[in-house]
Amino acid sequence: MVRVVMTYADRWLLPEGVEEILPGEAKAIDSLRRKLLDLYSAWGYDMVIPPLLEYTDSLLTGSGRDIDLLTLKVTDQLSGRTLGIRADITPQTARMDAHSFNRQGANRLCYAGHVVHARPKNPLATRTPIQAGIEFYGEADLAADIEVVSLLLESLQVAGLPRLHIDLGHVGIYRAIANDAGLTTAQEQEFFELLQRKAVTEIHAWVEANIPSADKAAAFILLPSLAGGIEVLDRARSQFAHLPQVIDALDHLQQLAAVVMARYPSAELYFDLGEVRGYHYLTGIVFAAFAPGYGNPIASGGRYDHIGEVFGRARPATGFAVDITALSKLGFIGQHDVSAIAVEVNQDPQQWAAIKALRARGERVIQLTPAGQLAELKCDRQLLLLDGKYQVVPLQ
Amino acid sequence: MVRVVMTYADRWLLPEGVEEILPGEAKAIDSLRRKLLDLYSAWGYDMVIPPLLEYTDSLLTGSGRDIDLLTLKVTDQLSGRTLGIRADITPQTARMDAHSFNRQGANRLCYAGHVVHARPKNPLATRTPIQAGIEFYGEADLAADIEVVSLLLESLQVAGLPRLHIDLGHVGIYRAIANDAGLTTAQEQEFFELLQRKAVTEIHAWVEANIPSADKAAAFILLPSLAGGIEVLDRARSQFAHLPQVIDALDHLQQLAAVVMARYPSAELYFDLGEVRGYHYLTGIVFAAFAPGYGNPIASGGRYDHIGEVFGRARPATGFAVDITALSKLGFIGQHDVSAIAVEVNQDPQQWAAIKALRARGERVIQLTPAGQLAELKCDRQLLLLDGKYQVVPLQ
Repeated sequence: MVRVVMTYADRWLLPEGVEEILPGEAKAIDSLRRKLLDLYSAWGYDMVIPPLLEYTDSLLTGSGRDIDLLTLKVTDQLSGRTLGIRADITPQTARMDAHSFNRQGANRLCYAGHVVHARPKNPLATRTPIQAGIEFYGEADLAADIEVVSLLLESLQVAGLPRLHIDLGHVGIYRAIANDAGLTTAQEQEFFELLQRKAVTEIHAWVEANIPSADKAAAFILLPSLAGGIEVLDRARSQFAHLPQVIDALDHLQQLAAVVMARYPSAELYFDLGEVRGYHYLTGIVFAAFAPGYGNPIASGGRYDHIGEVFGRARPATGFAVDITALSKLGFIGQHDVSAIAVEVNQDPQQWAAIKALRARGERVIQLTPAGQLAELKCDRQLLLLDGKYQVVPLQ
Repeated sequence: MVRVVMTYADRWLLPEGVEEILPGEAKAIDSLRRKLLDLYSAWGYDMVIPPLLEYTDSLLTGSGRDIDLLTLKVTDQLSGRTLGIRADITPQTARMDAHSFNRQGANRLCYAGHVVHARPKNPLATRTPIQAGIEFYGEADLAADIEVVSLLLESLQVAGLPRLHIDLGHVGIYRAIANDAGLTTAQEQEFFELLQRKAVTEIHAWVEANIPSADKAAAFILLPSLAGGIEVLDRARSQFAHLPQVIDALDHLQQLAAVVMARYPSAELYFDLGEVRGYHYLTGIVFAAFAPGYGNPIASGGRYDHIGEVFGRARPATGFAVDITALSKLGFIGQHDVSAIAVEVNQDPQQWAAIKALRARGERVIQLTPAGQLAELKCDRQLLLLDGKYQVVPLQ
């Protein structure tokens, strides 16, 4: 038998893709978390704290296979049923909206917290991201989509992003084209995968093999190229005039864009009508925000009506989640230079009163101890008794 | 084969002891979380965010069997090693202090986050508590214990507790008495269990059977009764004058109490010299805070030097954790009555500017939508265009 000797390094090692966050970054993350939650509260969103784990029966219901594969599972010692550590918070808020609230109309919820991914979403991604997000339940109207997209742009502003850039699409467009051509479920899935990869050569070959009507084939070929500025909507309108569902989706995007561009003139809206991310559960608009230097979306969302159906209450729903860890790593929130006051604590009540007053004013006051002397502490000032009064003086 | 039909209720159900937190309570918890982190920062503690899960080799090292049994385990799909969902954050900060920081002297860390317990600690406890806490590494001096106990009292003040009551003990006292009597490890463990249960009759029987010397037997009989106000320290001092380690521990408690009582005259300090909670890993003072109406401690801590030893760096350590979920349930932080302004959003840029300004001032402004009309939203005011100007007016 080989005896495995555990070294210190084994105990130090964190699992691949699992991160600990040290003070500078932790402060930035916590500051962004607070700013986002305050922003969402100012727009009328109520904070909820869903549990870190639930029965997989609840957690994976209505979400796709992607989420299933990302979810760590463990047997509940009390019930013997399978628990999942949440890989996404949205299905939890859907369950809460359907069950825990007694609200018939609009219900605005927000959250912030860790999720855990069994495997990293890509080789560089963390398996323990921290997310914040909002969900607007109960409102099918365009007004809710406009509110949600506006609030995403506000989130990017709060995070200090130098450019506000979002990609916008609508899953109703591909759905209508697929219906019109009478695709089988298998065909719809095949083309979905090609479209997601924007695999142009393969798309041409697939269309030739699967869509006999030249008219209908043209729609499939056109779809991946319908990406760019707002003029894309007009191009699509002339091409798909015969498909009322496409026209409805285009109208929806057009009205949304008009309000959003008026509110945020510096925002860059990029339309991608072949965008099908989340196609399996989304029902309307789909959007994502990207930042230079980060391959994955730093925020993404869309409309996903009916998500509550499996919980017995189908409700309109639209919302998004922001990846706080990624945003913080991108460094748009400045590192807070901590300034602090060192003090050699004595038994004088007057000194204690002075320390208390400084801390209450938001100052950081650090006590000198035998192992924590002035040279080691990051202090720029010192509290000293001068002329019979406790005074804060700069350190040389 | 029996086909199991899943009902909506199955999907709604949360696992026993797993909680979702709805808006009123979520706001109180988040507010307390912020206040505690701000308090710890004002005292010089740097925030860290340890990961939700680690290899059990790191997570369970140096902590007791209690934590092992509380920890949910799952196989890592990437490494094949066992991961544990953290049931306690302290061992994580010890690993971080030993490995991730290059600090030789004092290192003050704080944190706030979820932990998960495989089984509830007691029948009424949640399995997903939210904790905040501090750890002071690298300082063996009494000053660190005084700072930590002071900061616990400040935490209780910030949480709005009507009475500041803490229990104080020192594990060095039982350790010295056990050493003096030459107990075997098995005997030490047996008496430890009786002491923890304060099982007086059994203690008498055990002492009679195990401690032949009448002098030494008296010490064991006395120990559980040494509980009460500060006079307990004097009683113990006269009884244990022959045991220098006990006298050292009593001196330590006496000096700590003197400073703390001067700083917090309204605090009630209750001494319990037979307190052995955490005896297996604590090395010095041990303390806990209780609140009326809650059987478990709402905060607990102590000194646990050497915890970093298994990570290759034995460092003095003292600190505590506060159960934010429990504190919030006790309701000392008032429910925040949300006041909000309703608005029927139009396309007027002046209206948008007015909304923006209100939100920037910290007001909550909620848009009316078809499904969210005035009657359903909890608003006390409304933004209206009156005399050509957008004005906030009370709702009738």
